[in-house]
Amino acid sequence: MSEVSTETRTSAIAEFRNAIVGHLGSDVILDDPDRLAPYLIERRSLYHGSAPFVLRPRDTAEVSAIVRHAARLEIPIVPQGGNTGLVGGQIPMDGEVLLSLDRMTAIADVNVDGSCVTVEAGAILSDVHEAADAVGLMFPVSLASKGSARIGGLISTNAGGVGVLAYGNMRDQILGLEVVLPDGRIWNGLRALHKDNVGYDLKHLFIGAEGTLGVVTRAVLKLVPKPHVLDVAMVGVESPATALTLLSMMRAALADALTAFELIPAIGLEIVSRHKPDTRQPFAETPPWAVLIEASTFLPERPMRDVLEQVLMRAYEQGIVSDAVVSQSLGEARELWQIRELMSESQGVLGGSIKHDVSVPVAEVPAFLAEATAAALAVIPGARPVPFGHLGDGNIHFNISQPEGADKAAFLGRWAEMNEAVHAVVRRYGGSIAAEHGVGRMKRDLLPTVRDEVELDMMRAVKDAFDPKGLMNPGRLLPAR
Amino acid sequence: MSEVSTETRTSAIAEFRNAIVGHLGSDVILDDPDRLAPYLIERRSLYHGSAPFVLRPRDTAEVSAIVRHAARLEIPIVPQGGNTGLVGGQIPMDGEVLLSLDRMTAIADVNVDGSCVTVEAGAILSDVHEAADAVGLMFPVSLASKGSARIGGLISTNAGGVGVLAYGNMRDQILGLEVVLPDGRIWNGLRALHKDNVGYDLKHLFIGAEGTLGVVTRAVLKLVPKPHVLDVAMVGVESPATALTLLSMMRAALADALTAFELIPAIGLEIVSRHKPDTRQPFAETPPWAVLIEASTFLPERPMRDVLEQVLMRAYEQGIVSDAVVSQSLGEARELWQIRELMSESQGVLGGSIKHDVSVPVAEVPAFLAEATAAALAVIPGARPVPFGHLGDGNIHFNISQPEGADKAAFLGRWAEMNEAVHAVVRRYGGSIAAEHGVGRMKRDLLPTVRDEVELDMMRAVKDAFDPKGLMNPGRLLPAR
Repeated sequence: MSEVSTETRTSAIAEFRNAIVGHLGSDVILDDPDRLAPYLIERRSLYHGSAPFVLRPRDTAEVSAIVRHAARLEIPIVPQGGNTGLVGGQIPMDGEVLLSLDRMTAIADVNVDGSCVTVEAGAILSDVHEAADAVGLMFPVSLASKGSARIGGLISTNAGGVGVLAYGNMRDQILGLEVVLPDGRIWNGLRALHKDNVGYDLKHLFIGAEGTLGVVTRAVLKLVPKPHVLDVAMVGVESPATALTLLSMMRAALADALTAFELIPAIGLEIVSRHKPDTRQPFAETPPWAVLIEASTFLPERPMRDVLEQVLMRAYEQGIVSDAVVSQSLGEARELWQIRELMSESQGVLGGSIKHDVSVPVAEVPAFLAEATAAALAVIPGARPVPFGHLGDGNIHFNISQPEGADKAAFLGRWAEMNEAVHAVVRRYGGSIAAEHGVGRMKRDLLPTVRDEVELDMMRAVKDAFDPKGLMNPGRLLPAR
Repeated sequence: MSEVSTETRTSAIAEFRNAIVGHLGSDVILDDPDRLAPYLIERRSLYHGSAPFVLRPRDTAEVSAIVRHAARLEIPIVPQGGNTGLVGGQIPMDGEVLLSLDRMTAIADVNVDGSCVTVEAGAILSDVHEAADAVGLMFPVSLASKGSARIGGLISTNAGGVGVLAYGNMRDQILGLEVVLPDGRIWNGLRALHKDNVGYDLKHLFIGAEGTLGVVTRAVLKLVPKPHVLDVAMVGVESPATALTLLSMMRAALADALTAFELIPAIGLEIVSRHKPDTRQPFAETPPWAVLIEASTFLPERPMRDVLEQVLMRAYEQGIVSDAVVSQSLGEARELWQIRELMSESQGVLGGSIKHDVSVPVAEVPAFLAEATAAALAVIPGARPVPFGHLGDGNIHFNISQPEGADKAAFLGRWAEMNEAVHAVVRRYGGSIAAEHGVGRMKRDLLPTVRDEVELDMMRAVKDAFDPKGLMNPGRLLPAR
């Protein structure tokens, strides 16, 4: 689009606006700057959005009409859900028009016998949780921003969150999709089938595509039975390697009832107690590493706590676990989870923090942590790694806090340099540099460092096949050619 | 390819052969007719194969070399695994060259901590089962042809089988893939990550693509903990609708421990006792429908049988279940499974049978069965439907046996007409006409009856993006233009 003059673009946008108003009425357009502002703000202030106006269609037919006009006039479109993305995927700039799904919030057809629900892309995650709960079922994807994140965005980023170990990512919850394609046509893939092998399974193309292949407008989501009881343990271990051994033991004993296995370093326990001194500390003496283990049980009759305690006893006898606390009530379970949940926020007590959204194969986590720590310290001696998170998924939040007494701004100024050092280790272990948050604008230019030319060609071939004009969320997910 | 003269084709094939021999030696080529024959036989004799020779590469580099030469000389390639497909996908004809993966059988890197294994496409399913079992884990996809089916074929058809309710289809077991693309380049997507959102998730394109987008050469498969105990019940119910109510109750109580829920009609129980009179019959009086329920438990401590019996008691009190038998030993569990497993084979006692590989949304199974039965009887009055199978997946084997005393050949001669009547009902319920076995050559021309023009265009766009010359398993999966 860079060759189009500003004048031509302005005139095309005016024509686009007129076409939309003529077709759908002015009610779908929002251009009052005050009401526009929240759509353009990125929560970490890394991207500064701008847009001539926001389009707020009420249904799929309106999305289709909008995209059809945009295709004809070659107007680039940025779809947006709850605006909780962290990589600049949903923030319009450079004359892009924002398409918000926030009016399409219907949650219809909660189907108990079929264990599924049909929702519009703008439905908020916590509303989907409530709709499932109301019929005694559960939608298992959950994350911190559940009160604002919308289903379309969760699908387009293949969101992860705290339930991945037991239930998988967003991708694993989707039976069918409806998508408005870049030419405005509607693909009706809203199927509710568990077995279907009629041609290519196209829905997987759009899941995690960050809106670059079309606009997800509706989805059929799977629902699962609701667990009745949670048992949580916090245990001390010597190292990530012993934590991994414990993970294998827990998996063998609890199988799919093991619903969380989270790693926390000693420094993580310490900052939580500094940040929130009234947090109950589980250990008399802080161990080198802690693990939070959760077992979910679907029946009161299932003695999962006994199993959990038996495995911990065996692990203790084998010297794998140094100390352990098992919750005796839901209240105690929540107290233990609180330590894990305070990790991010508590890092503030150490000053600035450089973050990495990475994953490696589960079995490689201990070696990765050792090497990534060494690499980080080689870049900034005295920096304090606070690696924590989903050991069971191989997804560790590898956050690096500044050296004690260092200048925060100077430390954060070395963000890219630190990223590069850590990503180099991720690459050596066949890991991902975009585990949960996607690529967006932030990481698009890093793709050639983690994907070979064959794979980049394949991705470009897919993009060209669906969006030959490059108008759907341009400049996101794929590097410029 | 139809415009290429036979002479040109013959000369291209000779040139192709020379290029392969020059590059890889004659050992990769098999052209002795006796040794060739088994590769060309289709087990139901619906397709009669022919091929100038079979290529049997020993590794991915050899597959790549072969495909590169084929692309240059425009030779169509048909990949084949265990040759167990039922829709003509793997049978070469019309001058197509067969590429067998049967030499690439390595099962490497069984990774206990990471719960995964890397296998070559030619590995036989039962060998993968054994490799997982040897380290105390399980690979959960299983089906009747497990002793010959190979991983590459199972991936390319997204195979289902008896573990789908608890573990999902083949697609759900795959962490990473290696594929030789139609131009001969190798895509290394052999990742072992549980969280990875770096660009489009390309592996899903190849799963279920029936070899039309490239040749799957290796895969990283997930492994799961091995269940320790199986409890099986066989119960009598009044109708598919009451079976569905029981399914909801069992799901709520057993959750993911419910690993099978199979529907059997009264006529199914009767033909099993006629076909194998020494099979132990579970019921004193044959109920209108029976359901086989399996609960798998990972721990001896888990009292799953108690839960199963409690739910059955409740269902009995509510009039949902008329009669029930619960296995008291593994031997009894096997006896109950045997009834289900004998269904297909026992249909022979009724004469000829017309089959349908269909699925509908789980909640729609009762209505579908009523209408499909009426539709079948309208085509052939007196025909005897024997619908049985995976109610929990919405996947019923809707088999129709001939009327008593009818002429078998005349009955089977109306296969297409019967299919059309049943498929019309499947379509009304938003179901699939290719639930487990794929499309192949058999159903490619039916695609326009179940997929709209938008979706067919999308599939063609994908095919053209990866295989613009149309040389990879041509004429399978997609209808001719």
